[in-house]
Amino acid sequence: MKSQNKIYVVGIGPGNREHMSVRAIEAIAEADVIIGYKTYIDLIKDLIVDKEVIDSGMRKEVERCNLTLDYALQGKNVAIISSGDAGVYGMAGIMLEVKYERNSDVEIEVVPGITAASAASAVLGAPMMHDFAVISLSDLLTEWELIKKRLDCAAMGDFIVALYNPKSMGRVHQIEEAREIMMKYKAGSTPVGIVKNAKRQGEQAVITDLEHMLEHDIDMLTVVVIGNAHTYVKDGKMITPRGYQI
Amino acid sequence: MKSQNKIYVVGIGPGNREHMSVRAIEAIAEADVIIGYKTYIDLIKDLIVDKEVIDSGMRKEVERCNLTLDYALQGKNVAIISSGDAGVYGMAGIMLEVKYERNSDVEIEVVPGITAASAASAVLGAPMMHDFAVISLSDLLTEWELIKKRLDCAAMGDFIVALYNPKSMGRVHQIEEAREIMMKYKAGSTPVGIVKNAKRQGEQAVITDLEHMLEHDIDMLTVVVIGNAHTYVKDGKMITPRGYQI
Repeated sequence: MKSQNKIYVVGIGPGNREHMSVRAIEAIAEADVIIGYKTYIDLIKDLIVDKEVIDSGMRKEVERCNLTLDYALQGKNVAIISSGDAGVYGMAGIMLEVKYERNSDVEIEVVPGITAASAASAVLGAPMMHDFAVISLSDLLTEWELIKKRLDCAAMGDFIVALYNPKSMGRVHQIEEAREIMMKYKAGSTPVGIVKNAKRQGEQAVITDLEHMLEHDIDMLTVVVIGNAHTYVKDGKMITPRGYQI
Repeated sequence: MKSQNKIYVVGIGPGNREHMSVRAIEAIAEADVIIGYKTYIDLIKDLIVDKEVIDSGMRKEVERCNLTLDYALQGKNVAIISSGDAGVYGMAGIMLEVKYERNSDVEIEVVPGITAASAASAVLGAPMMHDFAVISLSDLLTEWELIKKRLDCAAMGDFIVALYNPKSMGRVHQIEEAREIMMKYKAGSTPVGIVKNAKRQGEQAVITDLEHMLEHDIDMLTVVVIGNAHTYVKDGKMITPRGYQI
């Protein structure tokens, strides 16, 4: 038991060690206790030697953060794990909220990671070379009306759009509506990249277009990247020009 | 000289080794030649041992990519360096465009990195826990009217907004106009985080609000993160709730 306790909120990136940051690997090494959603803990199990590991199910985010704080208050260094970037729909916010709710002054370090849109873009080529919007289609915590408004605004502004949590077993119509909203402003021929398990085991990628995107497999491990008006496909790569004269 | 030549487009993240990915470090180690903008090369010079290094000035992006391809065609492994994520306003797109323009079949691996918005968010707390838009205020390659439209759409959709390239020596009015557009939709009390050199030497961060943001130093090494309607500041941290019941 160390005298100085600390919480690391660690973004592990896509999941493979090779796309983790040096700091994320260090934070896991420095922790006495590792807490996270089971799927993410499994991704990094090679890095976890001689530590207490608490893996929990989905949708236990607040419980996980409370447990993290409990351990830190007992004098342990704790790493709480997020996939991608801990600061993008990740555990960083909830952990800080739990800390303040419980009036704790424990030290929290947010360790940033490579977010799924960046990992997916690297697989697809270079679709995010210009202004982009990241939108989660999960309406568990957000009103669907607000998500639709954001889809509308992002399409209207000709942003490249990265969709997180596009679809799950029980949530299938959102991606259809999202596509319809995109079609109000973007051509049916606009390139769309669909990447499952970007930059980790089981990676699958397909490049299609807005017209045909729903013909492809999309699930909760998938990121969908929709181009802007200048995005094109060449030799199986999706490219949004930055505007340089080549 | 190796028989199999390859180009790595490497996103080095904020600049410090600790926030580079394992793959980025490997790619630099595997390269015979390192090419990049001098400022970025300087950030990683500890990693460069026994290699040919070509550093060039700003705004030589196309030249740099042509040189990278020249070396690759000579049978060298070449790493071309981007700060942040190579796929976000980085070198990935230009490198692919130059490859196709010259009808080359050289292998290109895009190595993703932690983009500046993620690094800045980790410094500020957790401002990007919800849907966000990333917009560059540089109008060198993009019409200012389009940038303004995107600012308008992002603010209208109550996105968290991360502004890249907010200001430079010769470009000062854009951040003022951007703020005015934000104020059409967002309250003056909306939290704003201003981070210079996020997660690298010389880091400086301030949390202010839309009303007062222009009173603080902003330059081309700065990222500005503007909250959504629910973003708040607590104990010096900027937090956007994801919506969990704490």
